[in-house]
Amino acid sequence: MSNITIVGAGFMGSALAWPLADNGHRVRLVGTHLDGEIIASCLEKRYHPRLRRTLPDGVQPYYVEQAAEALQGADVIVSGVNSMGVRWIGRTLGPLLWPGATVIAVTKGLEATAEGELRILPDVLRGELPPVLRDQVTIAAIGGPCIAGELAGRRQTCVVFTSQDREALERLRSIFRTNYYHIWLSTDVTGVEVCAALKNAYTLAVGLAAGVLERAGGPDEAGAWMHNLAAGLFGVSNAEMSRLVALMGGDPAKVPNLPGAGDEYVTCAGGRTVRMGRLMGKGLTYAQAVIEMAGETLEGAWVVGQVFSVLPDWEARGLIGPRDLPLMRLLGRVITQEAPLEIPFDDFLGGYWL
Amino acid sequence: MSNITIVGAGFMGSALAWPLADNGHRVRLVGTHLDGEIIASCLEKRYHPRLRRTLPDGVQPYYVEQAAEALQGADVIVSGVNSMGVRWIGRTLGPLLWPGATVIAVTKGLEATAEGELRILPDVLRGELPPVLRDQVTIAAIGGPCIAGELAGRRQTCVVFTSQDREALERLRSIFRTNYYHIWLSTDVTGVEVCAALKNAYTLAVGLAAGVLERAGGPDEAGAWMHNLAAGLFGVSNAEMSRLVALMGGDPAKVPNLPGAGDEYVTCAGGRTVRMGRLMGKGLTYAQAVIEMAGETLEGAWVVGQVFSVLPDWEARGLIGPRDLPLMRLLGRVITQEAPLEIPFDDFLGGYWL
Repeated sequence: MSNITIVGAGFMGSALAWPLADNGHRVRLVGTHLDGEIIASCLEKRYHPRLRRTLPDGVQPYYVEQAAEALQGADVIVSGVNSMGVRWIGRTLGPLLWPGATVIAVTKGLEATAEGELRILPDVLRGELPPVLRDQVTIAAIGGPCIAGELAGRRQTCVVFTSQDREALERLRSIFRTNYYHIWLSTDVTGVEVCAALKNAYTLAVGLAAGVLERAGGPDEAGAWMHNLAAGLFGVSNAEMSRLVALMGGDPAKVPNLPGAGDEYVTCAGGRTVRMGRLMGKGLTYAQAVIEMAGETLEGAWVVGQVFSVLPDWEARGLIGPRDLPLMRLLGRVITQEAPLEIPFDDFLGGYWL
Repeated sequence: MSNITIVGAGFMGSALAWPLADNGHRVRLVGTHLDGEIIASCLEKRYHPRLRRTLPDGVQPYYVEQAAEALQGADVIVSGVNSMGVRWIGRTLGPLLWPGATVIAVTKGLEATAEGELRILPDVLRGELPPVLRDQVTIAAIGGPCIAGELAGRRQTCVVFTSQDREALERLRSIFRTNYYHIWLSTDVTGVEVCAALKNAYTLAVGLAAGVLERAGGPDEAGAWMHNLAAGLFGVSNAEMSRLVALMGGDPAKVPNLPGAGDEYVTCAGGRTVRMGRLMGKGLTYAQAVIEMAGETLEGAWVVGQVFSVLPDWEARGLIGPRDLPLMRLLGRVITQEAPLEIPFDDFLGGYWL
C-alpha cells in the first residue's frame, strides 16, 4: 500500500483516484486554487461534482493551502493540472519536493521556445523545479486514450506510461494497474508526449468534416455523408503526427499507434475539441467558434499555435520543406491568423508519395 | 482521353466510373456473371441500382459475355471484383490481355498458402495470368479510406495507389485524379495491401466495444460510455497492423497512416463490418452473428481466418512469439473456432512495452 498525492482535482487527476483507491492505496486529492468548490463538495458530501460520482473510500480531499501536509510521505505525486498549470505546479510543489520523489503527469501539450524549439511538458515541469532537485526527481507521464468519466466509471481503459526510468515505470504500473486500467510502458518520452499533444490539435482537423457536411446541407439524395473526408483528414493527421514525432526525436514506427491514432480516435468520438472543429468546418472563424463555445479555450488550439509558430524556424534550418505538414499549416492559419477555412486538398491530399 | 474498362459493377468498381468520366475518359463498365441485373438497369435506365445514382455520361455498360469487346484498346483495366473474384478475373481476363496492359485492382484481402505464407492479392492475380504475360502486365492496386457511395457522390476522398512501377503510378494518377478524388502514391505494395486487408479484420475488433456496452446495459448513471475500450482496441489494431506490415516486408513507419488508421477509421464509422463486431461483442457466436446478418459473409472475417491460419507456422519459424498479435488471435478464436468472446485484457492491454 502506498501514499499517493494527486494535485489538481479536475477530471483527469481526480479520475485516477478510482484505480488507485481500488488498489488499496491511501489517496490524497489536492485541489488547485481553481478547485475550491470541488474540494468543498468532496469534503462535505464525498461527491465529485464534475465527475458526478461519489468518491471511493480511501480518498482524502485537501484544499490547496494544505498541499504541504498532503505531500508528506507521498510515494508518488500525480500532477493532474492542465497545460496552463504546468509552471504553477513546478513552482508551487518544487520547494516541497525531495530527492527521490516521483511525479507522474497527465498534462498534454507542447511549448514553443523563443529559439524555435518545441518542448515537451515533462521538460517544462522539470525546468521549474529548484535547480538542486532537477536531476533528483523522477518524472513520468501518461498518454493514450482515456476519457476521465469512463475511468472513474471503471470502464476498460488502456494508456501508456512513459519515462526514461524503466524501473520507475514498472513500479508505477504495479501501483496503478487494475483489471480495468491497463498500462503499456515506453521509454520514448518524446514520442508519447508529442502524440498526446498533437491528437488534440489534429482532432480539430477531423472535426472540420462534420462542419463541411453541415454547410453542404447534410447527406445527399443517395445518402452520401462525408466519412471519406473525415477519414482522409484522420489519415493525414497520422502521417503528420509520425513526421513530427520523428522530427522531435521520437520513434515514428511504434509510438503513433495507441498514443497517436488510438487517442485521436477517442477524441474524435465526442467532446469539445471535435465540436470546435465542426464549427470551423461550418465556416465560423476561430474567434466566432470560441464565442459559440462560451469562451472556452482548448488545449488543441493552443498546441496548434505552438507548433505553427516554430515552422518558419524549422524551414529556415532545413528540417522541413515549405509544403510539408500542410494540415498543421492549415490549422495554424485558421486558428492564429483568423484565415477563412479553405481546405487546400491538392496540397495535402494530392501529390503525396507515401 | 483514355479508354478505361472496369470489370465488376459492384459498389467500388462502379464508383470509379465517376472520377474517370468526369476526366473525359471513355469508360466501359463490365458486369460479372453476378451483376446481370445491375448492367440491365444501367443499359435501360442509365441508373445504377446499388449506388442509387444515374450513370455519368461517357460510361458504357457491358454484360460479362461482352468482356472481350469491352477490353479492346483499353489503356487501363480496373479490377473491381471482391476478394472472392480475384482468381476468376485472372483466369477470365488473362487470355484477353496483352503485353504492356495495365490493371489496377480495388480488391482488399490476403490469402494463406499451404506453406504458411500470406500472399497479397496483386500477387494472387498475377499468378492466375497466362505464364507468358506474368511479367508483361503492370499490376497496381488501390488502398485507403473510400466509401464507394461517397466517391460516386463526388465527396472529397483520398486514397493510395500502389505499384512497383513508379511511372505507371504517375500515369494512373493523372488519369484518375479529380478535384474530389485525391491520390497518394506508394511503391510499398505489400505495406499498402496488408493494411487494406487488415483494416477490415480489425474493424471487427473495434466493433466489439459497442456490443460489450450494449450487453452491460448502455451508458452508466454518470454517462460513461465505452469509448476508451473502442479506442484501446483501435490503438492495439494499429500496433498489430504495423507489426504485420513489418513481418510481411512493408514499411511500418509510413504506410499505416492513411491505408491503415485512416481506412480503419472510415470502416468504423459505419457499415457491415463494425455491425458484425458489435453483434459478437454482445455475446453472439460468429455463426449466430452471420445468421443475424442474413447470411452475409464479410471480407474482414475471411482475412482473420487467413492470418490466423498462418500464425502457428510463423511461431514455429520464430517470426513471432506465442503471445504476439493477441488481438488477431482473439478474433481468430472467435471467428474460426466459435469460441465465446472473452477479451483477454491482460494479454493485449497490459504488460506491453511500446
